[in-house]
Amino acid sequence: MKRLLAATALALLPFAALAMDADQSRATGDMGLVIERATGSALVIDRSEHAAIGRIEGLGDTSHASMTYSPDERFAYVFARDGGLTKIDMLTQKVVARTMQAGNSIGGAISDDGKLVAVSNYTPGGVKVFDADTLDLVADIPAGGKTIGLADLPGRRFVWTVWDTGHAFMGDFSGETPVVTDLGEVGENPFDAVVTDDAHTYLIGLFGEKGVTSIDLWSEHPKPVKFLKDYGKLEDDMPVYKMPHLQGWAFTEGQFVLPAVGRHELLWVNRETLEEVGRTQVHGQPVFVIAQPASPYVWVNFATPLNGVVQVVDSRTHEVVKTLEPGKAILHMEFAPRGAEVWMSSRDDNKIIVYDTRTFAVKAEIPAQSPSGIFFTARAHQPGL
Amino acid sequence: MKRLLAATALALLPFAALAMDADQSRATGDMGLVIERATGSALVIDRSEHAAIGRIEGLGDTSHASMTYSPDERFAYVFARDGGLTKIDMLTQKVVARTMQAGNSIGGAISDDGKLVAVSNYTPGGVKVFDADTLDLVADIPAGGKTIGLADLPGRRFVWTVWDTGHAFMGDFSGETPVVTDLGEVGENPFDAVVTDDAHTYLIGLFGEKGVTSIDLWSEHPKPVKFLKDYGKLEDDMPVYKMPHLQGWAFTEGQFVLPAVGRHELLWVNRETLEEVGRTQVHGQPVFVIAQPASPYVWVNFATPLNGVVQVVDSRTHEVVKTLEPGKAILHMEFAPRGAEVWMSSRDDNKIIVYDTRTFAVKAEIPAQSPSGIFFTARAHQPGL
Repeated sequence: MKRLLAATALALLPFAALAMDADQSRATGDMGLVIERATGSALVIDRSEHAAIGRIEGLGDTSHASMTYSPDERFAYVFARDGGLTKIDMLTQKVVARTMQAGNSIGGAISDDGKLVAVSNYTPGGVKVFDADTLDLVADIPAGGKTIGLADLPGRRFVWTVWDTGHAFMGDFSGETPVVTDLGEVGENPFDAVVTDDAHTYLIGLFGEKGVTSIDLWSEHPKPVKFLKDYGKLEDDMPVYKMPHLQGWAFTEGQFVLPAVGRHELLWVNRETLEEVGRTQVHGQPVFVIAQPASPYVWVNFATPLNGVVQVVDSRTHEVVKTLEPGKAILHMEFAPRGAEVWMSSRDDNKIIVYDTRTFAVKAEIPAQSPSGIFFTARAHQPGL
Repeated sequence: MKRLLAATALALLPFAALAMDADQSRATGDMGLVIERATGSALVIDRSEHAAIGRIEGLGDTSHASMTYSPDERFAYVFARDGGLTKIDMLTQKVVARTMQAGNSIGGAISDDGKLVAVSNYTPGGVKVFDADTLDLVADIPAGGKTIGLADLPGRRFVWTVWDTGHAFMGDFSGETPVVTDLGEVGENPFDAVVTDDAHTYLIGLFGEKGVTSIDLWSEHPKPVKFLKDYGKLEDDMPVYKMPHLQGWAFTEGQFVLPAVGRHELLWVNRETLEEVGRTQVHGQPVFVIAQPASPYVWVNFATPLNGVVQVVDSRTHEVVKTLEPGKAILHMEFAPRGAEVWMSSRDDNKIIVYDTRTFAVKAEIPAQSPSGIFFTARAHQPGL
């Protein structure tokens, strides 16, 4: 009888194991996560199936969250507003590590080799660097203020900027001890910064003063250079409903495309000369301006109260070629990596909408709870994401 | 007793199932295949582990083979010289479909949505299009000659060129019936062609006449334009040991970098004006010129008999900054997608060598049988690859 019980106990194992197997034996190249901003959760999505295939809970305050993936696409690192850093296993759909690393966080990045995860913090400020495997703290870099615009650079390095002191820094974590270099003053109050897709240029947006600052990251002695001295928010303009996300700056056709702060405008800048080459009047205050892969088009969403509209602009003519009304409160857009479709989150319609980028037909709608950021695993292979 | 046996039989199941599980439950973002050119096989590699984790055999004549991945990274489609098209499951490491689709094949591509696989053929010529799921033939486009330079374009389209007739074609497979458009004459004998990373320009190399042909793929009426009228192979130059691969044309810093046919030279061309902006003297006749991601560098390998050397060239100064001797007969190079390392195949040393791109240290060596092309799954997310 005892042997029978033992055998039965063993016999029960396989079903659980096989059930888990069915979920876990899958390629990860078409997976993704959608942040659900009100519920501290993320929806696991399958791009090929146009489907949600799971939900991960317990991510903390996801009202302003971002994330990055390990190089093998197995793990997602979610940076929540409350300072929580959560490591998710995409195959088992489980939280495998979690740390409350600060009081208030703004974003993070993973090193080019996938070994380190860095987080930029508002409270108490500074940058914390963690072992990507265990989430053990490996470096704690104070900054004397709120850290913004953290991005990875090749060679296990990161770059970031400090709102309060106006300085940018490069941190090299390839040796035994971190080497942090002050790149100089970029402006009074840098509010966000982004690295171009070739990791060549660090672009820093300034608050309360005109101009944008650029740093040549390929230079042996990188230093801040101010350009576009007519760009930015001063008193005479419209109120700013939402600071634009600089990660949304599109790089296309030899140009940068910038959301004009506080205006219903896009600015086109020649990538080489850093001179303005055109403006586009758009529906509202731009938030994300994202290039559709393998095309001349950028797609733009807008700040509240005009956030029910998305516009498509041709980077050759600078003209709006399409205006869509996908749903209420379109917070984010993510393209399939070869550009065939774009996924949009409609926060107030509680759904994700998938558009065909060529026909503008709606290919699918997927229910989600107050969805915001959409992140496909293909980001694992893009420097700066 | 009978019940006990039944329970025991059930109990035996899990071990087999779990053993398979161990192999199949893995993320696919850091996987890849290395073509073994003498044995009709491909090595399955794990980039994170710097290891070979399996071998797939029965791929036919792999002496000149290429491949592409499905959008989810689950399947690889291998195009062999003998016309064999083989579909490999990356998780089970098994051949799941195979067809001898022609007598002699040169390469292929997958549609942006992953639904169609197209193959360009020498014998009998033309383009065949297959269902990516089943490998059933869905379209057979005759061409009146050998097809070269086949690449995917957004919107379930492909572009290709015919060596014998000198015409380029665009095929749209998004509707019920394929629509094939003749883009006009590109030159007498186009030997290879490539689409730029933004899918904007189709560049076509010509044999036996000077010049390169460019087609603006974003135009409503794309048409061939000849440029670089001093470029190419005529009688007075050195013998050509190997036609350079145009897939190796690097696009960096607003430039194209071209291997000079039959010369020990790279040519730098301004991407916008299509004018030559510089030349670099290199070690031998360039074969692949590949841009290191997130850097100003291109890496170059060379035709026999000088194929034991790899050089690194700075795209800003056009100067050689490093000369490496990795091994005998370096046939191909593939970068980790964020550029941290480069993998090289040394055919005659029967190994793959992994270099750190920053320190030039050898990080690993992996045994392989006459390795040639190296293909990481991250290619699934790059238009034109």
